[in-house]
Amino acid sequence: MSYSNLTKSELTAELAELSQQYEGFVEKGLTLDMSRGKPCTEQLDICLPMLDVLNSSVSCKSANGFDLRNYGILDGIPECKALMSQLIQVRPEQVMIGGNSSLNMMFDAIACMMTTPIVEGATPWFNVPDRKFLCPVPGYDRHFSVTGYFGFEMIPVPMTAEGPDMDIVEELVKNDASIKGIWCVPKYANPTGITYSDETVRRFACLQPAAKDFRIMWDDAYCVHDIADEGDKLLSLMDECEKAGNPDLPIIFCSTSKVSFPGSGVAAMATSENNMKVFKARYTNQTIGFDKLNMLRHLLFFKDFDGIKAHMMKHKDILKPRFETVISKFEEQLASCEIASWTNPRGGYFVSINVYPGTAKAVVKMCKEAGLVLTPAGATFPGGFDPEDSNIRIAPSYPPVEELKMAMDVFCTCVRICAIQKILSE
Amino acid sequence: MSYSNLTKSELTAELAELSQQYEGFVEKGLTLDMSRGKPCTEQLDICLPMLDVLNSSVSCKSANGFDLRNYGILDGIPECKALMSQLIQVRPEQVMIGGNSSLNMMFDAIACMMTTPIVEGATPWFNVPDRKFLCPVPGYDRHFSVTGYFGFEMIPVPMTAEGPDMDIVEELVKNDASIKGIWCVPKYANPTGITYSDETVRRFACLQPAAKDFRIMWDDAYCVHDIADEGDKLLSLMDECEKAGNPDLPIIFCSTSKVSFPGSGVAAMATSENNMKVFKARYTNQTIGFDKLNMLRHLLFFKDFDGIKAHMMKHKDILKPRFETVISKFEEQLASCEIASWTNPRGGYFVSINVYPGTAKAVVKMCKEAGLVLTPAGATFPGGFDPEDSNIRIAPSYPPVEELKMAMDVFCTCVRICAIQKILSE
Repeated sequence: MSYSNLTKSELTAELAELSQQYEGFVEKGLTLDMSRGKPCTEQLDICLPMLDVLNSSVSCKSANGFDLRNYGILDGIPECKALMSQLIQVRPEQVMIGGNSSLNMMFDAIACMMTTPIVEGATPWFNVPDRKFLCPVPGYDRHFSVTGYFGFEMIPVPMTAEGPDMDIVEELVKNDASIKGIWCVPKYANPTGITYSDETVRRFACLQPAAKDFRIMWDDAYCVHDIADEGDKLLSLMDECEKAGNPDLPIIFCSTSKVSFPGSGVAAMATSENNMKVFKARYTNQTIGFDKLNMLRHLLFFKDFDGIKAHMMKHKDILKPRFETVISKFEEQLASCEIASWTNPRGGYFVSINVYPGTAKAVVKMCKEAGLVLTPAGATFPGGFDPEDSNIRIAPSYPPVEELKMAMDVFCTCVRICAIQKILSE
Repeated sequence: MSYSNLTKSELTAELAELSQQYEGFVEKGLTLDMSRGKPCTEQLDICLPMLDVLNSSVSCKSANGFDLRNYGILDGIPECKALMSQLIQVRPEQVMIGGNSSLNMMFDAIACMMTTPIVEGATPWFNVPDRKFLCPVPGYDRHFSVTGYFGFEMIPVPMTAEGPDMDIVEELVKNDASIKGIWCVPKYANPTGITYSDETVRRFACLQPAAKDFRIMWDDAYCVHDIADEGDKLLSLMDECEKAGNPDLPIIFCSTSKVSFPGSGVAAMATSENNMKVFKARYTNQTIGFDKLNMLRHLLFFKDFDGIKAHMMKHKDILKPRFETVISKFEEQLASCEIASWTNPRGGYFVSINVYPGTAKAVVKMCKEAGLVLTPAGATFPGGFDPEDSNIRIAPSYPPVEELKMAMDVFCTCVRICAIQKILSE
C-alpha cells in the first residue's frame, strides 16, 4: 500500500488511525534521548577491567625505560603509536598520540592552519577571506561546526553509495584555490554508514587541488567498528597518497572513544613528515605531552591489535540487536508505504533515513512532543540546513532494545503521519 | 675573600685551584639533567595510591548521577570545579576543567584570542601586526614560547621582590593599545620564587590598559606548593579585580601536575562570565569534554582541599632538603666571593641565581661539559636573550640529595671559574 497509490480518503483514514496511535504514545510519557551516538551502559561495562590493569603494583615504565608518570614525550608512547598506527593503516612514525578526543586534534589541526601555513609561503587561512571547505552531505555535524567556527564557507557535496561524489570533488578543488579541505568519515560514514570504495580512496589520493595547502581531514572514527559479521574493508589512504606522489594530502584521525571509554579514550592523528613538522612546531609550544598513564592503561588492557579486535566483537554483540531493531521496524512499518529510504550499514554508529521530502523537521518535532529526542533535522548538513528537509540520523546505540522498539514505533508513526499530511497538502 | 678585593695574582692562583677541582669533576663523569622542574621519583611514588582509588568496583557516577565514563560535560565535573576553585581562590562557577595540562589551556586561550576577539568589536590579535605581550623577567620560558609562536613582540619587565615592576607595567599598558597581555606566575614565581605582594595584586586589579582586550595570564602553578613551614599568602586576583570593577581582566590557571602526576594531572582555568562565554564558544566546537574519569580519580584520592594540603606536606618533606642543599652550597661556596646573588624561596620549584654578569652562558656550558645539564642560560628571558647574561634557573627537585650536592659543587666551581676569567679579562 504505497501512499502514492492511495486515494485522498484512504490517506485521511490512515492518518486518523495513525494519529490515534500517536496519542497513545504521548500518553505513555516516553523520555528517551537518541540525539547522539552515545555508547550504552553495557558497552561501558565491558571496558571496566581497564580501570584495574594500571594500579600501584604495576610498573609505569615504557619499553625504553621512561617513567610515564612524569613530564615528557610530546607525541606519545612509542608502543601506543605502534598500536594506533595499525587501526588507521599508517606507519608508527607517522602517528602522534593526543588527549582523549580526536575531535580536539582535528580542531587543533584546523586552528593551526588558520594562523600558520601548512605549506611554506602559503597564506594563513585566517587571511583568506573567502576560505571554503567541502562537506559531504549528509555528514557529521561536529565537523561542520569546526569549520563553521573558523569562518569557512561550507560547500555541500552529495554522498553516493561509494563515498562523496568524486566528479564534483575533483572539479571543485581543481578550479578554486580558496577551497582548503574536505571532511571525510571514510568507513561507516556518519551518518550514512557506507564505506568509501577503493576507487573513491584512489581518486582522493590523486586529487590535484588548485590550493597547495588543501588537506583531506580523514576521520577514521569507525575503523574497527563492525556490526555485520563480515565488516567493510577500507583502502589505506596514506598508502595510496604515497603511491600517487601526494603524501602531504591526508591528515588521518582516530580515537578509542568508541572502543574503550567515550570520555577517557586515547586519540591519534597521522600525517606526512612535512605536515607533522608544522603541527609539532605548534604542539611543542602547546603542551609538554598528553596523558601517558592513560596511554599505558590502554596498552595494558588491549595488549595489541588482536586485543582491540577481540574487544570490538563484544561491542558488536551489544550493538547488532539494536541496529537490527531499527532496520526491522523500518522494513515492517515504512517499506510498503514507499515514503522513505534508509541505509543498512555493516558498522559504525548510525542509520541514515530520508523521510518524505519536506517533513524531517516536522517528524523530529512530533517525536520530541512524544518524549523521543532525536538528532535535530538538518544537523547532518553544514549550517543545519537540509535543502530537502528529508534526512534524519538515527543513533541506535544508547537505548536498551525494548525502549528502542518503542522509540522506533513512535518514529515510524511520525514519519507516516507527516508524509500523509504533506501529501494531502500538496 | 670577595673577588673584587683580590689581586690579579691571587685570582690567578684561585683559578688554578678551581680548574683542578673542575678537572676532577669531569673525570668522575657525572650525568645529571637538571634542565626542567621535574618532580623526582619519590614524589611520583607518594601519588601511586591514586592509581588504585578508581577501579572496576567503584561507581563512576558524579554526585548528580551522570555516568562519567560516557561523553559529555564540557567544563568538567561540578565537584572537580569546586575543588580546583579553592586552589585558585575563585568561585566554582568561574572554573572550567581541562585536560592534563594548564599550559595547553593557556595556549588555547591565546590561540582563541588570536582569531576571536575576547571583547566584541575588538580586532582579532592576528590582525594586530604590532601585537605585544609583557613578560616579567626572569620568567617562565614556556610562557614566552606561546606568545613567541603567535608572533608577539615581547617586552621584558623587570621583576622586583614584590612582583613585576608595577610602575613600568602601568605606564606601558596605559599608553599602548597594542599591548594585549602579561604573563604572571604570582606565587613562588618561576624562577625567582617570590610571591607577589598584596599591593602588586591590587595594582594589577586596578590596571587601566589602553587595550580593552588586554588580559592578565595569571598562572597560579604553585598555589599550594610550599617548601617553608610558613608558606606565602597570595591575595585573590579575582576578588580584587571584581572589587576594582575590572572583572574581565584576569584569566587564572592552575593544574595538579606538581600535585599528583606531572603527565596525568588535571588542569583548570577560571575567568569572568564574559570571557568564559568566548572561550566556551570555542571549546564547544573543540571537544565534547575532557577526561572525566581522571577528574574522578583525583576527587577520590584527594577528597577535598584539606586532602590536597595534606598531600602537599609530603611533597614538602621531599623537596625541602633539596632546596636546603642548593642554598647551603651557594652560601658555603659563593657567598664570600661576592660574585653572585640568589633567591631563597619559601615554595615553588626553582632557585634563581644571578652569576657574574656576562658569564651565565659560559657557566652553563662548562657544567654541561662536566655532565651537568642545566636550564639554558637566557631561557628565563623572551627570545632566550638575557641582556646581562647573568640569570640561571636552578631546578632542585629531580636529583637525589647526594647527586644534587655533587651537582652544586660542580656548579659553584664553574660560577667561580667563569667569574675570575671574566674579571681577569676586564
